[in-house]
Amino acid sequence: MTKHFADRLINQMEAKNSVVCVGIDPILERIPAPIVAKAQESHGPTLIAAVEAIANFSKSIVEAVADLVPAVKLQAAYFEQFGSQGMWAFEQVANFAAEQGLIVIADVKRGDIGSTAKAYSSAYLGATEVFGKKEAINRIDAVTVNPYMGSDTILPFLDDCGEFGKGVFVLVKTSNPASGDIQGRKVDESGFSVSDLVAQLVESWGSQEVGERGYSYVGAVAGATYPAELAKLRELMPASIFLIPGYGAQGATAKDVSAAFGEDGFGALINSSRAINYAYEDSKHGAEGFMDAAREAVEKMNEELNEVR
Amino acid sequence: MTKHFADRLINQMEAKNSVVCVGIDPILERIPAPIVAKAQESHGPTLIAAVEAIANFSKSIVEAVADLVPAVKLQAAYFEQFGSQGMWAFEQVANFAAEQGLIVIADVKRGDIGSTAKAYSSAYLGATEVFGKKEAINRIDAVTVNPYMGSDTILPFLDDCGEFGKGVFVLVKTSNPASGDIQGRKVDESGFSVSDLVAQLVESWGSQEVGERGYSYVGAVAGATYPAELAKLRELMPASIFLIPGYGAQGATAKDVSAAFGEDGFGALINSSRAINYAYEDSKHGAEGFMDAAREAVEKMNEELNEVR
Repeated sequence: MTKHFADRLINQMEAKNSVVCVGIDPILERIPAPIVAKAQESHGPTLIAAVEAIANFSKSIVEAVADLVPAVKLQAAYFEQFGSQGMWAFEQVANFAAEQGLIVIADVKRGDIGSTAKAYSSAYLGATEVFGKKEAINRIDAVTVNPYMGSDTILPFLDDCGEFGKGVFVLVKTSNPASGDIQGRKVDESGFSVSDLVAQLVESWGSQEVGERGYSYVGAVAGATYPAELAKLRELMPASIFLIPGYGAQGATAKDVSAAFGEDGFGALINSSRAINYAYEDSKHGAEGFMDAAREAVEKMNEELNEVR
Repeated sequence: MTKHFADRLINQMEAKNSVVCVGIDPILERIPAPIVAKAQESHGPTLIAAVEAIANFSKSIVEAVADLVPAVKLQAAYFEQFGSQGMWAFEQVANFAAEQGLIVIADVKRGDIGSTAKAYSSAYLGATEVFGKKEAINRIDAVTVNPYMGSDTILPFLDDCGEFGKGVFVLVKTSNPASGDIQGRKVDESGFSVSDLVAQLVESWGSQEVGERGYSYVGAVAGATYPAELAKLRELMPASIFLIPGYGAQGATAKDVSAAFGEDGFGALINSSRAINYAYEDSKHGAEGFMDAAREAVEKMNEELNEVR
């Protein structure tokens, strides 16, 4: 039987004693010089060299942190901006991370309906039908999804979650300054905000399919930059694993996210991307030592977070 | 000077006497047998053959309708489900449509913030920086975007809209049954729904950048399946071009969408995808005549819509 996504993730957290998710945000101008030089040596200052550089950099970061964390999160936009060749790099990095035994989250924030949503689910979580044969296109364990279009956008993913042991993280309350524009508005004189409403939907979608560890495969994205809301969201979604961006580069601390954990000390995955990817920029390690710098940044984050959960 | 997106689109509508947008939804099982047979002849029943079949089918539909309509809309999910090779097909089809002089809309429904949103904008509307040189990755004129994360998700696209003469269509009120889950809720005791609130934001983002024809480059997706709301949304967003899905296959008629047009008879682009792509299935034309069937379906839709605007 396929193992439940939440159980797979919590078991990894336990085995590695870590609730950290390392985000992979390959930004060409910030990639260490030796990697760029090597790519340009073969291909000159071309799109192919750029794609090779982001692929190699991303794989090196994955390799550097693979034994320290349960999960990595690939930000699709940084690959997609290089077109289909960038998406080829995305696939290489996702496969490489899966081979390291990591839970791989694709931060794609897709949101569409019916058969279109189903196609996105096939692309990342399930399999695409090719002339009557199902083919797995990507080795992704979970995707982020946008709920604006309603339950029609989420439900098509859930079949694949059940069948293949995969998960979704629904955008509930995001970490950006303007998240209040829509998410923060109160609805229907209930005192609940739009994000609270989405939290209730997340609970309703996920609560039927809870794994052995007590969590469902319908997770929630909740920003670390709004600590007061995390406690409330935890109450509204007791069975959801939270994926929490905003740690480090966006300014949130371990104390800010402590309310997100369940009583078991699990149930939340704290993401940091650039503070780890580009840790070498502000460290004693030069560009050559970017992997060591990334490891140290993760070790520090593990320590900080293990103290508050 | 780069021409304003709305002017380019309205001029095309006028030149072709059409407000129809043909959606490109390549679904492998419904692609005419001769196209599939030809792809399999070279590559067997493989992923490559599937990708070749969706590319060739999509290009044929574009070719069949290019002189009849101002715009086509590519649904990214149907390409993305075949991975990076599918995205290669997406690029081929988008380029081909651009070469035919069509306005090309990428229905990607992306929504992210800051530099991530900027990366999506670079991928489709602007250009990606490759070692200090800007490279255009795709020849797309406009993308659909999801506003759930707030203005941070939209503003990064607007620079490219201005600089390159491109546009965005913000999801306001979608055509699916569950769109009411979030979009339909009333906010802040104002009597306005979440979708009305987004409409007000769309107006505020776009109203400063109106072209010669009176429309802005910030358009709105508004479902044809809610005709009563279209008139209200038109009032809230007088300067926006509406992109309206739901015609045909989803059941809406010309009368249902009539309130979406401005007084000039323009200002709304009515999309139909499958009723045109797969018109041959219910027509006298067999699989060999799928292009003729698509043309006829578009001609009929042009007639119906030109009567009500």
